[in-house]
Amino acid sequence: MGKLPDWWGALSTAQLAIEIVATLAFALSGLVEAARKRLDVVGMCVVAGLTAFGGGTLRDVLLDRRPFFWVQHAGWVWVLLALAVGAMFFMRAHHLRPTERAMLWPDALGLGLFAASGTQIALQAQVPALIAVVMGVMTATFGGVLRDIVCNQIPAAFSDHRPYAVLAFAGGWAVVAVQATGGTDEAALAAGAITASSLRLLALQRDWRVPAWRSDDDGPA
Amino acid sequence: MGKLPDWWGALSTAQLAIEIVATLAFALSGLVEAARKRLDVVGMCVVAGLTAFGGGTLRDVLLDRRPFFWVQHAGWVWVLLALAVGAMFFMRAHHLRPTERAMLWPDALGLGLFAASGTQIALQAQVPALIAVVMGVMTATFGGVLRDIVCNQIPAAFSDHRPYAVLAFAGGWAVVAVQATGGTDEAALAAGAITASSLRLLALQRDWRVPAWRSDDDGPA
Amino acid sequence: MGKLPDWWGALSTAQLAIEIVATLAFALSGLVEAARKRLDVVGMCVVAGLTAFGGGTLRDVLLDRRPFFWVQHAGWVWVLLALAVGAMFFMRAHHLRPTERAMLWPDALGLGLFAASGTQIALQAQVPALIAVVMGVMTATFGGVLRDIVCNQIPAAFSDHRPYAVLAFAGGWAVVAVQATGGTDEAALAAGAITASSLRLLALQRDWRVPAWRSDDDGPA
Repeated sequence: MGKLPDWWGALSTAQLAIEIVATLAFALSGLVEAARKRLDVVGMCVVAGLTAFGGGTLRDVLLDRRPFFWVQHAGWVWVLLALAVGAMFFMRAHHLRPTERAMLWPDALGLGLFAASGTQIALQAQVPALIAVVMGVMTATFGGVLRDIVCNQIPAAFSDHRPYAVLAFAGGWAVVAVQATGGTDEAALAAGAITASSLRLLALQRDWRVPAWRSDDDGPA
Repeated sequence: MGKLPDWWGALSTAQLAIEIVATLAFALSGLVEAARKRLDVVGMCVVAGLTAFGGGTLRDVLLDRRPFFWVQHAGWVWVLLALAVGAMFFMRAHHLRPTERAMLWPDALGLGLFAASGTQIALQAQVPALIAVVMGVMTATFGGVLRDIVCNQIPAAFSDHRPYAVLAFAGGWAVVAVQATGGTDEAALAAGAITASSLRLLALQRDWRVPAWRSDDDGPA
Repeated sequence: MGKLPDWWGALSTAQLAIEIVATLAFALSGLVEAARKRLDVVGMCVVAGLTAFGGGTLRDVLLDRRPFFWVQHAGWVWVLLALAVGAMFFMRAHHLRPTERAMLWPDALGLGLFAASGTQIALQAQVPALIAVVMGVMTATFGGVLRDIVCNQIPAAFSDHRPYAVLAFAGGWAVVAVQATGGTDEAALAAGAITASSLRLLALQRDWRVPAWRSDDDGPA
């Protein structure tokens, strides 16, 4: 559509690799969740697609960045459709019952990768550091929020009182810190992704809680 | 706003006619649904407007295409407001009770028309065929999804196990096929719209189901 | 991002002041609602941010207007985060129980201010008057709709049968009327904001209702 400089849709190799892995990780978390909800095959494709591409698309709309990842690399949409249909028939044939636990691992991976790449891509668009981090948080959380809305449950990111968005926030600041101290782009991406993903897994394992209202005070006023 | 070539907001006569009929069809389906839910007159206007313009607006935001149909042709917004207010008082005066069945016909019409025109408009923006078809599916389904969310029910497109999005998908490929084999734009639009709409009506009549998990296995794991 | 004329992200002083006050008012309404729902501290930040910036961001995406208010004035995002965290610990320390009533006042203020500024900013983008008013309504209502969706309740704007969106509509037309009769921009903003906010407070006090279906007829057909 030619209205932006040439460098501006271009992702570095590291960013592109992360976008692909994060997309597949979130697609997988969407597939597991859709399977748990017994959606039909169309629903599996829709949930996998929204989870995988939702966050990056919101980021690109807000940054006015085109073309979208999934428009430029349409092959990955085919991969996703094949995955969704294949996963459904595979799970059905083998009587597999996906568990919530099986969804949490790819979800944590996607969280860290998208938080890091979303923050870095926003920094390249010359927005202030805080805004870049907020964009990273949106990239990392919006796909999962769409997944939960379509599966008709309150978005886990807002309701489970376990740290989620705040870890993407921390990962985003790790990217900013590494870049501000002269680290390479690749080092910044790695620092952000490892910070957010490993904190998420740790939080799930240790059952960390976000400070909240006292539970003995739980009726609305 | 002058940043895109002149040809790029322009719709052909056939596309414009389809956009108008599809908009009115979806507005009607929104009115029936809002009436079934006993929304107030403001709610009827909002639901009719979201259903009618939601899909096309999402398509245009994703394609970075301006001006929107409803911005350029503001007269149709007046028509919609008049329809919503008129429909409410007409139905109230005549003690009409709209049925779910009455909503399904205009909904099927809007589905086919928007799938066809959304796909063709995206093709003109030079995106790959699969992406154009996905854009057509979004154009055709997003308005109805917004309608269902505002009316506080799980989007029918994701939950009723009857083919819906997949028929828009089929209609989109019909557009691609006719254009790839040298058919005119009008023939492509007609092929896509007839494919999706008539399959939808057939699916409702014959009670076709989308392949899904076994019903004897319906508790979450 | 330099693709639009210089005047086009620029707000007049009056518009900027209104954007700030309206943002804080909606942030406050989001905080009260999040506190009533006993969200955790991350949820409070998210709800306050969505309520405060949601409407203006939707308006700017639809008008293809950049940079967003919160990208250009990132300091206010810091203010918001500080407010959210501070409000939570303050309310917790003082055992305050926020009431629904406490949310309605800042909500009414934000409604009027955003309806007026949203309409005026859209008029400056040379859209037809009706479209500008609709943009004002979206600016004024979308933040509250997001707040209610995230807090897992049906958007009050669509369900409480008390006038809300229709008052933003009236405020928008007040802006159009003052500008059409040669009033200054500041007078138009004041007229629109006072119209919508004071009507909302009056409507709440007098318990006005929007015309709706008869209540004795409330089952779906």
